[in-house]
Amino acid sequence: MQGQAQQQAYDRGITIFSPDGRLYQVEYAREAVKRGTASIGIRTEDGVVLAADKRSRSPLMEPTSVEKIHKADDHAGIASAGHVADARQLIDFARRQAQVNHLRYSEPIGIEALTKEVTDHIQQYTQVGGARPFGVALLIGGIEDGEPRLYETDPSGTPYEWKAVSIGANRGDLQEYLEENYTGSDGLDIDDGIELALRALATTNEDTLEPSGVDVGTVDVDSEEFHELDNDEIETHLDDFDLLPTEGDEDESNEE
Amino acid sequence: MQGQAQQQAYDRGITIFSPDGRLYQVEYAREAVKRGTASIGIRTEDGVVLAADKRSRSPLMEPTSVEKIHKADDHAGIASAGHVADARQLIDFARRQAQVNHLRYSEPIGIEALTKEVTDHIQQYTQVGGARPFGVALLIGGIEDGEPRLYETDPSGTPYEWKAVSIGANRGDLQEYLEENYTGSDGLDIDDGIELALRALATTNEDTLEPSGVDVGTVDVDSEEFHELDNDEIETHLDDFDLLPTEGDEDESNEE
Amino acid sequence: MQGQAQQQAYDRGITIFSPDGRLYQVEYAREAVKRGTASIGIRTEDGVVLAADKRSRSPLMEPTSVEKIHKADDHAGIASAGHVADARQLIDFARRQAQVNHLRYSEPIGIEALTKEVTDHIQQYTQVGGARPFGVALLIGGIEDGEPRLYETDPSGTPYEWKAVSIGANRGDLQEYLEENYTGSDGLDIDDGIELALRALATTNEDTLEPSGVDVGTVDVDSEEFHELDNDEIETHLDDFDLLPTEGDEDESNEE
Amino acid sequence: MQGQAQQQAYDRGITIFSPDGRLYQVEYAREAVKRGTASIGIRTEDGVVLAADKRSRSPLMEPTSVEKIHKADDHAGIASAGHVADARQLIDFARRQAQVNHLRYSEPIGIEALTKEVTDHIQQYTQVGGARPFGVALLIGGIEDGEPRLYETDPSGTPYEWKAVSIGANRGDLQEYLEENYTGSDGLDIDDGIELALRALATTNEDTLEPSGVDVGTVDVDSEEFHELDNDEIETHLDDFDLLPTEGDEDESNEE
Amino acid sequence: MQGQAQQQAYDRGITIFSPDGRLYQVEYAREAVKRGTASIGIRTEDGVVLAADKRSRSPLMEPTSVEKIHKADDHAGIASAGHVADARQLIDFARRQAQVNHLRYSEPIGIEALTKEVTDHIQQYTQVGGARPFGVALLIGGIEDGEPRLYETDPSGTPYEWKAVSIGANRGDLQEYLEENYTGSDGLDIDDGIELALRALATTNEDTLEPSGVDVGTVDVDSEEFHELDNDEIETHLDDFDLLPTEGDEDESNEE
Amino acid sequence: MQGQAQQQAYDRGITIFSPDGRLYQVEYAREAVKRGTASIGIRTEDGVVLAADKRSRSPLMEPTSVEKIHKADDHAGIASAGHVADARQLIDFARRQAQVNHLRYSEPIGIEALTKEVTDHIQQYTQVGGARPFGVALLIGGIEDGEPRLYETDPSGTPYEWKAVSIGANRGDLQEYLEENYTGSDGLDIDDGIELALRALATTNEDTLEPSGVDVGTVDVDSEEFHELDNDEIETHLDDFDLLPTEGDEDESNEE
Amino acid sequence: MQGQAQQQAYDRGITIFSPDGRLYQVEYAREAVKRGTASIGIRTEDGVVLAADKRSRSPLMEPTSVEKIHKADDHAGIASAGHVADARQLIDFARRQAQVNHLRYSEPIGIEALTKEVTDHIQQYTQVGGARPFGVALLIGGIEDGEPRLYETDPSGTPYEWKAVSIGANRGDLQEYLEENYTGSDGLDIDDGIELALRALATTNEDTLEPSGVDVGTVDVDSEEFHELDNDEIETHLDDFDLLPTEGDEDESNEE
Repeated sequence: MQGQAQQQAYDRGITIFSPDGRLYQVEYAREAVKRGTASIGIRTEDGVVLAADKRSRSPLMEPTSVEKIHKADDHAGIASAGHVADARQLIDFARRQAQVNHLRYSEPIGIEALTKEVTDHIQQYTQVGGARPFGVALLIGGIEDGEPRLYETDPSGTPYEWKAVSIGANRGDLQEYLEENYTGSDGLDIDDGIELALRALATTNEDTLEPSGVDVGTVDVDSEEFHELDNDEIETHLDDFDLLPTEGDEDESNEE
Repeated sequence: MQGQAQQQAYDRGITIFSPDGRLYQVEYAREAVKRGTASIGIRTEDGVVLAADKRSRSPLMEPTSVEKIHKADDHAGIASAGHVADARQLIDFARRQAQVNHLRYSEPIGIEALTKEVTDHIQQYTQVGGARPFGVALLIGGIEDGEPRLYETDPSGTPYEWKAVSIGANRGDLQEYLEENYTGSDGLDIDDGIELALRALATTNEDTLEPSGVDVGTVDVDSEEFHELDNDEIETHLDDFDLLPTEGDEDESNEE
Repeated sequence: MQGQAQQQAYDRGITIFSPDGRLYQVEYAREAVKRGTASIGIRTEDGVVLAADKRSRSPLMEPTSVEKIHKADDHAGIASAGHVADARQLIDFARRQAQVNHLRYSEPIGIEALTKEVTDHIQQYTQVGGARPFGVALLIGGIEDGEPRLYETDPSGTPYEWKAVSIGANRGDLQEYLEENYTGSDGLDIDDGIELALRALATTNEDTLEPSGVDVGTVDVDSEEFHELDNDEIETHLDDFDLLPTEGDEDESNEE
Repeated sequence: MQGQAQQQAYDRGITIFSPDGRLYQVEYAREAVKRGTASIGIRTEDGVVLAADKRSRSPLMEPTSVEKIHKADDHAGIASAGHVADARQLIDFARRQAQVNHLRYSEPIGIEALTKEVTDHIQQYTQVGGARPFGVALLIGGIEDGEPRLYETDPSGTPYEWKAVSIGANRGDLQEYLEENYTGSDGLDIDDGIELALRALATTNEDTLEPSGVDVGTVDVDSEEFHELDNDEIETHLDDFDLLPTEGDEDESNEE
Repeated sequence: MQGQAQQQAYDRGITIFSPDGRLYQVEYAREAVKRGTASIGIRTEDGVVLAADKRSRSPLMEPTSVEKIHKADDHAGIASAGHVADARQLIDFARRQAQVNHLRYSEPIGIEALTKEVTDHIQQYTQVGGARPFGVALLIGGIEDGEPRLYETDPSGTPYEWKAVSIGANRGDLQEYLEENYTGSDGLDIDDGIELALRALATTNEDTLEPSGVDVGTVDVDSEEFHELDNDEIETHLDDFDLLPTEGDEDESNEE
Repeated sequence: MQGQAQQQAYDRGITIFSPDGRLYQVEYAREAVKRGTASIGIRTEDGVVLAADKRSRSPLMEPTSVEKIHKADDHAGIASAGHVADARQLIDFARRQAQVNHLRYSEPIGIEALTKEVTDHIQQYTQVGGARPFGVALLIGGIEDGEPRLYETDPSGTPYEWKAVSIGANRGDLQEYLEENYTGSDGLDIDDGIELALRALATTNEDTLEPSGVDVGTVDVDSEEFHELDNDEIETHLDDFDLLPTEGDEDESNEE
Repeated sequence: MQGQAQQQAYDRGITIFSPDGRLYQVEYAREAVKRGTASIGIRTEDGVVLAADKRSRSPLMEPTSVEKIHKADDHAGIASAGHVADARQLIDFARRQAQVNHLRYSEPIGIEALTKEVTDHIQQYTQVGGARPFGVALLIGGIEDGEPRLYETDPSGTPYEWKAVSIGANRGDLQEYLEENYTGSDGLDIDDGIELALRALATTNEDTLEPSGVDVGTVDVDSEEFHELDNDEIETHLDDFDLLPTEGDEDESNEE
């Protein structure tokens, strides 16, 4: 372990290793991820659930303008945490890769392949000079060969496959909650996954969630279609799970 | 949170994150926005209102030369706050994107799509080295599919959709004023929106406004045409709202 | 506001903002403008007047070699203040833009359009690295659609339209003089404009001017032709206004 | 040998030597390799064995998502240790080289030739500026002309051929274990190699291994086909060797 | 005005202004000019005279090898002061421009146009990074439209037209001498100009000049031909003016 | 001579000279050569001998994988000392040059010409920025016009021709040994050269050498073919010269 | 004159002037020249003599491998002093220029033209960033229009023509010796020139010279052919002049 003065000597250029073999700029980009509100992904028996905390900065802001869940392709969705503008770049990149796959092979891109296209792109920004790393993590979920798949990309460009995972603020607590409450995908259907995801997000907000303060998207194995829940659907779920709050809160940063 | 000495170590290159995951150059660019005079956007039932404070530096300067409200396309206007020369670049970029859309698809560009073209352009200047970020925020308002839409772009390249919003100087006070006085777009017509915007701007100027010291532009759902109010129209409005002043004041900076 | 030590940390690269959102290199380029001798522009009812102080460094230097007033196109002139070599680049750029307009549209370029081509060019040098900003301000005057127009460009790349304006040394005093003595363009003809400009310049020189120490150019609405006054014309004017001196003075710098 | 203050002066640019002729950035990249979990390669009489420790960070992470053993071509596999995202780049590079060889010469690429293509690629990143070295070591094993071959690449771009070798964490202890227990390839078959590799990895984990915590791949001289063992095969081996554990452990870093 | 410590902060990059709007690297390049031996230009009624001090470093050096006066085109000559190798680049540039003019327009390039081509070239080296300014000043003299013309270029890229001027060492004294003794071009013929130039140069050398220590070139309005005086012609002039010395002196620097 | 603090100011960029005219980065690259194990070249009457110490890091490493002697072309071999990965680049470069010569001129490249192609390539890395020098020295030996030739390249890009020479570790002692024991090429045949080279290398290893710890290559004037001795040949020689050891030793660095 | 601390601030980049107008990197490159052994050029009535001190580092080094005198073209030779690898680049450049002249004009390149091609090339490395200056001086001698010519190039890119000149170590003493003993080219033939050059070189070596420690080349006006003296010719000369020594000495540096 190194002292602060020494650390500073190695943490300002992405193209250098520290004496103990670390890339500080990549580690700082992970801090940018932590500054964003949380997103959660759950793999269930019959699909994938993506859910995201998207508390608005102001009552005058359109809740829909804070997008945390995005459609990547018909059969795949992406949730993000961290620097919003960076997330938009990576999501656009992922969409283009998905389109290219349709054009070349006339079939949807695999979720793993899509993830690795994205992480290879991210890695370039950690090795070659002249640009900073992406300050964002993504959850990429969808159906591949009839099976639900859920991946995470981090700022180093490493892909991970998960059963259930959270990115962004409070990752420690949320991941612990998931490990305690995720009982395996057997017998867990998409509605159970939505409940688990929403209950997890609610733990960081005094066990309540505004319908407008959360995004939920799913891809099920039958339709293989990404579906983003509308406000009413979310409200119904929250009501069912007894998570409806009285008041939303504000977040001034532009990380989500 | 970090002390000042440490902050200085990470705030001089756009391509590096600080240890707590922040991009200081982007945050400083936001300060450039705050140095400019305020602009306000209001979404109403039948259109969008853009209004801007544009106090001149000198009685000999042509008031029209301080442009804060610009036509982006027939159906869309843009208000700016911050570094004027930067604003001109982004507005030109937006106009070219709108033209390209006409050429490619023979239809007007969507307000959301236009906004995101602009924010993607802004984001590049925050990640790739060799240039500084844009020191300007924009409000992009117009009609999309018959609906009024109002967006903000910030120096990080994040797009936000708003019902009512202010950028530039006194954002805190103005946004608070809007939150208190914006009662929802139901029943709020364009003239009400103009009144709200002008009254808000006047709060920072002892409740008076020079006709030549303010720009107002509107896009209504019927005509889908951007309309910039001339001096007489503005004077009539100010007179109606009892906001006519006795004297304008000067601003030496070239941020507006 | 910041102390001097801190300021120094942010003022050496054009591609970075200071913590309070300023671009110091652009502000220093404005100082280069102030180091140059003054130029003045006056918009009158029937034309535009450009006048410039061009005191020579030595009696052996050809007064005509210190050019402060330049023809940009048949219908437009440019006066400069600041770094001479930089001014030449921008004036050449403006001339090429005017030529391109003739070739493309077979008509003279508008004064506003010409100004904005120049300011867009200037802005690039304030945002993209590898070069310094232009250390010069220009006054661009001419006739557009039969109307006299007068613009200023500054080192940030911001265009301003003026009725009467000064750039360069003593801007504060000269602008104050103009504000007091410019009574509006109604009833002010070109000869009145010349008188006002010369009287203003003379205030900084004990109320006298050498014919060879001043450049005067005009564009009137009838001919729409840029006309640079010769030595005799200037002498006649100075004599009429009782501004003829006994002795010129020297200026060692190469800013004008 | 140099003191710490002096070392710091030469270790931040890949393009400079220290006064004693060392390339510190390359040495720091070796530290990144040591931060990754271990991989082991064993050359046997009838093939090559690659084995890797791949302990997961969380019970919710898919063990298969932490890939340490990769197929490079039909007849060749690669194990990695160090920065995961870097490993993926080099493995992709190796795969492309193998494909190119098939296209050009209609025959599989030699293991030595493949290794040297990779190390030449790595070397470029240690001599030419603008990028950092690769923070990863690889073991490349396969069959060439009917003979098993096993190579290592390190961050300096040096290729080494081995009978038995470990890379990553605990290299010192593991290599010592291999030197004591590797009795030469004569009479050692692939199953013996798997046993030796797994027993070596287990020494760093209280002599137990989770089936999901280890990757094993082989290439035998008969089939000349890379084969990655599935979970059941690994469990059977671990059971045979009495190495089955009770519990896995976590590793928070993204080096493997 | 600034102190030395502060000055140092702004004088090492050509692409930055100092807080008072100065370009220190350009000012230092002017110092390089002052380190060179003097050159003088005189405009007379019937031509232009260029003369240069070119004291040799050693009696074994060929005096002709220290060239200070160069032919730029049939009708134009150039004298230089400052960094010799830089001078050669600019003179070659000027010759190419003159050739291009012959090819394009089948007529000799104007002296003013030639000068401005050169100063535009110099200016680029003061604004765009990656190179230093030219450490040399030139005197460009010749005949344009039947009239003698004499220009100076300085390291900032500013062109000046002169009746009589000196560049290089002792500029202050020499220019003062010229101002006192140059009585206007009326009635001053080329021989008078040569006398004035040689007498001026001699003032810095105890009123004597070696024939081999001085270069003299002329362009007269009749022939419009650049003529470089040979040693005998110079000796005759020096003898006539009673300026022949007993001994030359040495100069070790490679600025002339 | 300079003190250490001053030296540090000039030794970090290859593109700058120190005040006493030295290129420190090149001198440090020479240190990288000294960190590698020794190579020796001997010119004899009937050929050239190259020999190299190549002690392995581990008994499990394939001795053949530590290549110190390489075939450059049919008639030429290369021995290296220093940074292994750099050596591979230069040897590949040399081989390509040799191939190009065959293609262009249908004859083998001269040994001197080959050496100078390599040293010109090395020199570029010492003058142009953006890369570090090569940390390796080469011995290039072969037959040219029927005569044995032996050259050295060093990190500055200087070629030297030798009768007998050593590079790498212990150069001082080894060169002294060669000067004492090399009696001229008259009467010295290749076997004598092998003996001299092996005896020299053995002096640094208690007068013994492992057959696997040494590489030997020869080119004789009759065959003009590069021949690399196999293990048995080397063992026979070592046995003849009574140099067979009991034990090899290890070297942890990746310089050879 | 400046103090040491200040000097250091301006001597590390080739693209900046010091406050007193100096280019320190060029001056340091001159130090690299002084670190090399001396070369001497003598112009005689019937030709040019080039001679160079080339003491070898070791008795095992081929004296011919330390080349200080090179043929540039049939009618021209080059002697060098300073960084050997740099010299090779410039000599190759000179040879290519000579070839190009043959191809373009079917005649040999003039000695002055050849020199100026070389110095223009050198100058580029002193003005444009990204590379260091050449650390070498050259003497270029040959026949042009039937006349012997002798030029020097220095690291600033300045050409000088000489009757007799030395470059490299001991320039001060050697040049003084030449000034005292060179009596003009009248009556001085090539053999006299060889004697003068060798006697001068011997003054720095206790008045003796090894035949293998010196290179001599001549170009005479009759043959217009560069001729490099072989060992016997040199030995005969040294014997004639009574300069044969008993012992050579060594020089460890790679400047010559």
